Amino acid sequence: MITANQKKFVKSLAQKKFRIQHQCFVVEGVKLVDELLVSDFSIRSIYATSSWINDHPGVEAVPVTSKDLSIMSAFKSAHEVLAVVEFKSPKKPVTLQGVALALDFIQDPGNLGTIIRTADWFGMNTIYCSSDCVDLYNPKVIQATMGSIFRVQVLYGNLEELLPQHKGAAIYGALLNGENVYTQTLEKDHAILVMGNESKGISPKLMPFITHPVSIPGKGKAESLNVASATAILCAEFAK
Amino acid sequence: MITANQKKFVKSLAQKKFRIQHQCFVVEGVKLVDELLVSDFSIRSIYATSSWINDHPGVEAVPVTSKDLSIMSAFKSAHEVLAVVEFKSPKKPVTLQGVALALDFIQDPGNLGTIIRTADWFGMNTIYCSSDCVDLYNPKVIQATMGSIFRVQVLYGNLEELLPQHKGAAIYGALLNGENVYTQTLEKDHAILVMGNESKGISPKLMPFITHPVSIPGKGKAESLNVASATAILCAEFAK
Repeated sequence: MITANQKKFVKSLAQKKFRIQHQCFVVEGVKLVDELLVSDFSIRSIYATSSWINDHPGVEAVPVTSKDLSIMSAFKSAHEVLAVVEFKSPKKPVTLQGVALALDFIQDPGNLGTIIRTADWFGMNTIYCSSDCVDLYNPKVIQATMGSIFRVQVLYGNLEELLPQHKGAAIYGALLNGENVYTQTLEKDHAILVMGNESKGISPKLMPFITHPVSIPGKGKAESLNVASATAILCAEFAK
Repeated sequence: MITANQKKFVKSLAQKKFRIQHQCFVVEGVKLVDELLVSDFSIRSIYATSSWINDHPGVEAVPVTSKDLSIMSAFKSAHEVLAVVEFKSPKKPVTLQGVALALDFIQDPGNLGTIIRTADWFGMNTIYCSSDCVDLYNPKVIQATMGSIFRVQVLYGNLEELLPQHKGAAIYGALLNGENVYTQTLEKDHAILVMGNESKGISPKLMPFITHPVSIPGKGKAESLNVASATAILCAEFAK
C-alpha cells in the first residue's frame, strides 16, 4: 500500500529543489523503466500497476492504481510505472576521447533530452553542461532522452574553466557565421563541439576558446535551426 | 478596450475544435508576430501591451495589459503580443520540385514545428502531413516553427493517395533497417522523404510506396533518433 505522504513525496520530485534536497529523481514509463532496470543507477522504489508487475516478475515494486500514478506523475497522462532513482555522482573523465559536446545555457528540457539521445545514437558518451543549463533530472529532459540518460555521462560545470583544460583539443563552436562545416576536415579524435543557447547562441565569454567556428549552410529564410536539430546534423558529420 | 468575451474567444482558440469552427488561430510573441506582419497571412486582430504598440507604429492593435495577455495565452508565460490570424487555404502544388517531406502521424507538436523550421532552413517549401498528424495550428507547433510556418506550405491529406500521384519521384523512407544514407546518390530534383511516427515509425500501409529505404548509421546504444533530429540530418544530406 502507498500512503498519501509517499504520493506527495514523489510528486514533489517534479521540482528541482526537492530533487536536490532528497538526491533523487523520477523516471516514468514502461520503456524508460525497462532501460533503467538494466542500467547501473540505484533504484529506491518502483510504483506500478498490477499489470506492469505481472509483466516484470522478480522486480520489487509497490502496487498502485492508475489513479495513484496520475497523482504522482509530472505529466498530464500518467504511465503504468514510475521509479524513484538516486542521483549518480558522475565519474570525471580524465582525458577527452573522441568528440564531446559542451552545451552553453540550453534552457529547453526537450532540447537537452533530445541532444542526449542524439549523442547516445552516435556513440558520444560525454556531455558538458554549463551550470545554467536546464536540470538533467527535469522530468521532461528524462522523457526526451528515451533512456539515453542512463548511458551518456552528463557533467555540469563552468565551461569557461573547463574548455581551457582541454589543451590541444579542437574546440568547435556552432555559429551562424562560421565556416561551412562540410568543407572542413573535422578533428574526430580530440575535439569538443560547443552548442549555444536557443535564442542567444554561444555566450561571448566562451568565444575566445572556440578554435573552429562552424556553420550548417542553409538555403531558406529561417533565421536559424533548432539547437537540437543543429546538434544532430553536426554530430552526424563528426560520426561519419 | 478588450471585453471578457474577446479574451474568452482568444483563449478558446488553443483548442482545435474552436480553431476549426472559427477558421482562425493564434500567433504569440514578438518574433513570431514580426514574421507574421511581413507574411501573406490575413490578420484579424492584434492584442498587445502599450510598449509593443509604441515599438510598432502604424500597426493596428488593441491595447491590453500583461494580465489580459496571460488570460488569453495558451502558454504558462505570456508574451507581449498576440495575433488572431485567418486560416490560409493552401495552394495545391501541381508538380513536385526538389525534395518534399511527407510526415506520417507525427504526434508531438514540438516535433512538427521543429521539422517545419528545418525544412525552411534548407529551402524545402512543401510538407505533406497525414491527416492524423498533430494540427498545424496547435500553439506549440506554431511556437516551435519560430516563424517558418508563414513560409513553408503544409498540406494535410491521405498519404496513401498522395504518394502514388508522384509518378517517377524517388520516395525515400527513414527506417531503422534501410540502406546507409551516406552511401547513396540522392535524387534531389524529384523526391519525397517520408518520416514516420515517433514510436511506430512509417506505417505498414505506406511501405509499398517507399522506393528508397534509408537509415542514418549510429554507433551507440540508443534505439532510435528523435524524429525531428533524424529529419534534420536527412534534410541536410539532401541540401548538400
